[in-house]
Amino acid sequence: MTDQRIAFIGTGIMGAPMARNLLRAGYAVIVHNRTPSKAEALRADGASVADSPAQAAEQADVVISCLPDSPDVEAVWLAAEGVVAAMRKNTLGIDMSTIAPSTARKVADAVLRAGGAFLDAPISGGDVGAVNATLSIMAGGPDEAFKRAEPIFRAMGKTIVHCGPNGMGQQTKLCNQVICVLNILAAAEAITMARKAGLDLARMLEATTAGAARSWMLENLGPKMAAGNDDPGFLIDLQQKDLRLVQETARELNLPLPGTALVSQLFAANQAAGEGRLGTQAIVKTLERLAGLRNLPDR
Amino acid sequence: MTDQRIAFIGTGIMGAPMARNLLRAGYAVIVHNRTPSKAEALRADGASVADSPAQAAEQADVVISCLPDSPDVEAVWLAAEGVVAAMRKNTLGIDMSTIAPSTARKVADAVLRAGGAFLDAPISGGDVGAVNATLSIMAGGPDEAFKRAEPIFRAMGKTIVHCGPNGMGQQTKLCNQVICVLNILAAAEAITMARKAGLDLARMLEATTAGAARSWMLENLGPKMAAGNDDPGFLIDLQQKDLRLVQETARELNLPLPGTALVSQLFAANQAAGEGRLGTQAIVKTLERLAGLRNLPDR
Repeated sequence: MTDQRIAFIGTGIMGAPMARNLLRAGYAVIVHNRTPSKAEALRADGASVADSPAQAAEQADVVISCLPDSPDVEAVWLAAEGVVAAMRKNTLGIDMSTIAPSTARKVADAVLRAGGAFLDAPISGGDVGAVNATLSIMAGGPDEAFKRAEPIFRAMGKTIVHCGPNGMGQQTKLCNQVICVLNILAAAEAITMARKAGLDLARMLEATTAGAARSWMLENLGPKMAAGNDDPGFLIDLQQKDLRLVQETARELNLPLPGTALVSQLFAANQAAGEGRLGTQAIVKTLERLAGLRNLPDR
Repeated sequence: MTDQRIAFIGTGIMGAPMARNLLRAGYAVIVHNRTPSKAEALRADGASVADSPAQAAEQADVVISCLPDSPDVEAVWLAAEGVVAAMRKNTLGIDMSTIAPSTARKVADAVLRAGGAFLDAPISGGDVGAVNATLSIMAGGPDEAFKRAEPIFRAMGKTIVHCGPNGMGQQTKLCNQVICVLNILAAAEAITMARKAGLDLARMLEATTAGAARSWMLENLGPKMAAGNDDPGFLIDLQQKDLRLVQETARELNLPLPGTALVSQLFAANQAAGEGRLGTQAIVKTLERLAGLRNLPDR
């Protein structure tokens, strides 16, 4: 299995450690990145470096991309000199970016027409999960392609779920983001109420985390909100990009999502205050401004 | 310690098993309930039965109440023939209902003036937690009263947090409810999106529960939402009573809570559809109606 050659396109905060974990598992890896220095950094780990997505793809059995947004994925895969034009027949394509399910299906169709197979396989678990190979991977695509990809996924992640046909990996990721942001709002409203009422925040978190209010977000972001620690696990600007995908997809589905829309508006207020590069827990600052507890930051 | 006599007022779904656990721990318990049959049922467990709150209180060292709402608590404690008028000096009063923090402080003041001590100590964990003595108890009041109450709490609950002075137990419970209802909305919006997109709901729940979207509500109510199981763990009508307390208290605090207000409006739509006696997970029915997936129930 590890005689397979993998092209890995997009070696940013997530992609670089994922590519490193593939090298560690014994795969030959050819990397490409738009900013070349980020790809070059992986030579020390045993990767070879390609000058373009096409050049990476033509040498590979499997092509993986991990990119910021839908247009980046379309450009890398579908451009005249992109992956689909250059790849061998029987290539397994895997996009691990978070993009629109409709874009994932469009790329899947193109790969299929060119004789390959495709999986949309977005991830969750953050940069820590990428480094430690503990990512959750939500895959959409044909059974056969999923089976072929499974050992590759196991080198990068821990929870690997085959969610359905192409697009369903992305759809699952969007559902994941809906839950995450509303759980963040839950913690932020409770902390703002506690602060305004003069409640000891640590005791409130202790009591609520013990019961039916428990969540990953309350446990992990609650203490940061209480301490005013805005260090990003996940940036508000990136969260808003994911919520844009959620809301575009919801429009395609003819689906109102009132809670998700509200959270997105509150994050927009953070962005208006110049706080887009803070961690998502900083939504509590928007609520504190609404509550008369805080002014806009000095600028 | 167990030579103490406890008056227990309000032996409903929560109060009855809590009184039973006190009897099991060796306390002498005198019960009273507005509907006498519910108190009589505890004779078989060793309780004695009083005809009024005052009659229960005058025989007791400790008076506990567990009642539906703020007016019930005011009536039991503050009426001309209520607990405060009848109780002995040095009585420890404990109200375990979920009521407004401001009402809890009013009762606390009256008990203090009559020579007693008071704790507000609302609970979470449902009827199962009441039966199994695994409730979370959030207590507000003086240190000395809390120390005196601790062994009594240990007979009924598992996580026992002293949240601060009088009112802060109730305030913590309201924060808990804010988190709970927004976590419920999170699960419901994700499930409605998944349903509308044709996603396999079990796989979506598997993938999301493994990561940062994890919550008690997603784990416990998500599968019920997916299966269309509306059996109440906690009734929408009762949740709305708690959200009314949250919103009244928020008004007193001059505090906007936009997410909590939204959830309350969506639960109001369930009530308008005649679904107030369903479990809180039935908020997914409101979202399904908004999404054009469901009609009003036949009536």
